[in-house]
Amino acid sequence: MDLASLFSWHGRISRELDAVVDFWLQHSHDEEYGGFFTCLGQDGKVYDDLKYVWLQGRQVWMYSRLYRKVPRFRRPELLQAARAGGEFLLAHARVAPPSQKCAFVLTRDGRPVKIQRTIFSECFYVLGLDELGRATGEPRYQREALAMMEAIVHWVREDPSELGRPLLAGASPHDSMAVPMMLLNLVDQLSEGDAEAASRFSELGGWSAQRILMHVQRDGAAVLENVSEEGEELPGCLGRQQNPGHAIEAGWFLLCYAQRQQDSDLVAQAVEKFMKEPFRLGWDPEHGGLFAFQDVDGLCPTQLEWKMKLWWPHTEAMIAFLMGFAETRDQELLERFVQVAKYAFAKFSDPQAGEWFGYLSQEGKVALTIKGGPFKGCFHVPRALYICEEILESLKRETQLTSQG
Amino acid sequence: MDLASLFSWHGRISRELDAVVDFWLQHSHDEEYGGFFTCLGQDGKVYDDLKYVWLQGRQVWMYSRLYRKVPRFRRPELLQAARAGGEFLLAHARVAPPSQKCAFVLTRDGRPVKIQRTIFSECFYVLGLDELGRATGEPRYQREALAMMEAIVHWVREDPSELGRPLLAGASPHDSMAVPMMLLNLVDQLSEGDAEAASRFSELGGWSAQRILMHVQRDGAAVLENVSEEGEELPGCLGRQQNPGHAIEAGWFLLCYAQRQQDSDLVAQAVEKFMKEPFRLGWDPEHGGLFAFQDVDGLCPTQLEWKMKLWWPHTEAMIAFLMGFAETRDQELLERFVQVAKYAFAKFSDPQAGEWFGYLSQEGKVALTIKGGPFKGCFHVPRALYICEEILESLKRETQLTSQG
Repeated sequence: MDLASLFSWHGRISRELDAVVDFWLQHSHDEEYGGFFTCLGQDGKVYDDLKYVWLQGRQVWMYSRLYRKVPRFRRPELLQAARAGGEFLLAHARVAPPSQKCAFVLTRDGRPVKIQRTIFSECFYVLGLDELGRATGEPRYQREALAMMEAIVHWVREDPSELGRPLLAGASPHDSMAVPMMLLNLVDQLSEGDAEAASRFSELGGWSAQRILMHVQRDGAAVLENVSEEGEELPGCLGRQQNPGHAIEAGWFLLCYAQRQQDSDLVAQAVEKFMKEPFRLGWDPEHGGLFAFQDVDGLCPTQLEWKMKLWWPHTEAMIAFLMGFAETRDQELLERFVQVAKYAFAKFSDPQAGEWFGYLSQEGKVALTIKGGPFKGCFHVPRALYICEEILESLKRETQLTSQG
Repeated sequence: MDLASLFSWHGRISRELDAVVDFWLQHSHDEEYGGFFTCLGQDGKVYDDLKYVWLQGRQVWMYSRLYRKVPRFRRPELLQAARAGGEFLLAHARVAPPSQKCAFVLTRDGRPVKIQRTIFSECFYVLGLDELGRATGEPRYQREALAMMEAIVHWVREDPSELGRPLLAGASPHDSMAVPMMLLNLVDQLSEGDAEAASRFSELGGWSAQRILMHVQRDGAAVLENVSEEGEELPGCLGRQQNPGHAIEAGWFLLCYAQRQQDSDLVAQAVEKFMKEPFRLGWDPEHGGLFAFQDVDGLCPTQLEWKMKLWWPHTEAMIAFLMGFAETRDQELLERFVQVAKYAFAKFSDPQAGEWFGYLSQEGKVALTIKGGPFKGCFHVPRALYICEEILESLKRETQLTSQG
């Protein structure tokens, strides 16, 4: 496969990004209370007005990032909606200030409905507000993001009691890969172009990367979602659980980190252990697409949706393989990118109504017609399209320089 | 359809019950710690040794009930295993006595792993221990069951704070149909042949039945899983949610209650609103089988498995339609019983290894090969086969009496 055929994806990805952003601009803004509707049917109709804090924070991030980085999205309506979303979070996400604990889901007007005993609502609060601060230039958003980040790090590394999970004798503490992945992602966000923050979070970045690497098990042959605090394999389903899309997403988080650290060993590990290998095991040889869950011993997972094809493992794989190719020029990664992008555009994309379907059967048939829901918002699809567009542009520039040189 | 063709199911159901019980006898007993393994693969191999309290209580109930009521199952090994399961629950289920709160899942040796902020672990604790008391004749099991029942009723009707759910401003209190269904089932269990208990729980039975009836909405056209405390429809996905198998299960719970109360209006409501109508809406016209979830407005549910065919809605429908037919002699119910039984025996039953698969794709293909897991144990399949066998025997006796009369 040559670069020309890779570049044929550029226009298609850019047009898709435009269509996807249009979908959210048209259908998701709550003009009355601020924030975003994310429970949107196939044509964008709101079927529930609950506001999931993960998805509020993610959409604030996405709009702010596009506004700040992509000239054609430097449009007042994006910044205005991002700001209204940020203000909604500031006003309502924290359930009982001065505690930093956030709700998982709020009513349309911001009353808390449910609290999760995890850190993720708070993490997407940080992600959204930090980027909003960068897009608006108003430091108060970043100040709030940093204060929340401190609480999150305290919960993870010192004392989780404020999260509200009881300590039970049979629940051995373990490391769920989502936690260090999320922290590494936040370190990346907070450190960009900010030497002080970069220095402040440098140790946390290293710690998070090491924690993620602990999940490589079985003599390097498998990434497991949960391991003991000491990096040992755990018994039972919890210990055997694999999530190919998640491993691949961790791969590009690690690759970004390795690039910043100029660590070529880590680049190789990210590519081999977190991209190529999870793809080899996780791609359905019969119908195509990545499985949602697997068991490292080949047993049947207990997640009902394990065979289903979800949108986000595919968006993360597009990012990972393209970023990996740009870094290494390894042909295998280029081929994987095209393989995943072809599947995703053919199966998930909805050229009629915009945005992507989120949930397909094993065979690739649309199983849920919704475009957004409690776990799918304005995030994975536009983030992948934006990052892939950026990488393709950079590859093109390099190629032109080389051919002119 | 005539009675002779119905009776052709009798032998098949009895043989299936034997095979299913054999499966659990062979594979699920923990001889070392007592209690049951329920995470069993297709051939019965244990793939996780966690002990889910719901399933421990249910298996104690099932074994004790078969021992007490079905002569061919009056075997010491069943009673011994039920007793070991009951002792395991007594020793380990309650997390912090004197509180009555039970764990949701325990390690193999009984240490708590997770607590749910609901009443269901405790309810299956009551169900199992009460029936074990009846099977063994030892009153201490029933004393413990009654003490737990008091706590449950207190949590539901007076003060839920011990359950640990925070009261949040946006979470409007609502009635989830599972709660009054469970209570009605327990009233039935505790009252059998016990005039004192029957009188003690009589008001609770009436209250539970009324609460279930509140879920009939849309001028009688739909059973909704969640309604307000005042019996009004709720907004959003929560309010529109339907679960055809659950409605049909509520149908036979109500029918049992109506029979005890000799309430012919309630018999008619149970049959029309909770059996016939949910079946009409919930049966997949394309591939057969009952959908797991639906939205009353025909929108797409957000549950990933909504189109999948789960075993338990089908076992509950077999019970409901056969019980309904025995009560009313309505031909439509007889036809529905045969339709569901045919589908279930063809798709869920595994004549090679025993027991039933639990999870099929919309098209009826086995999606998960496990025979047991965190939510499937020795309960719905043997309970349905046992109740259907009992009803068929009783219908046969009546027919013989009539033809001799």
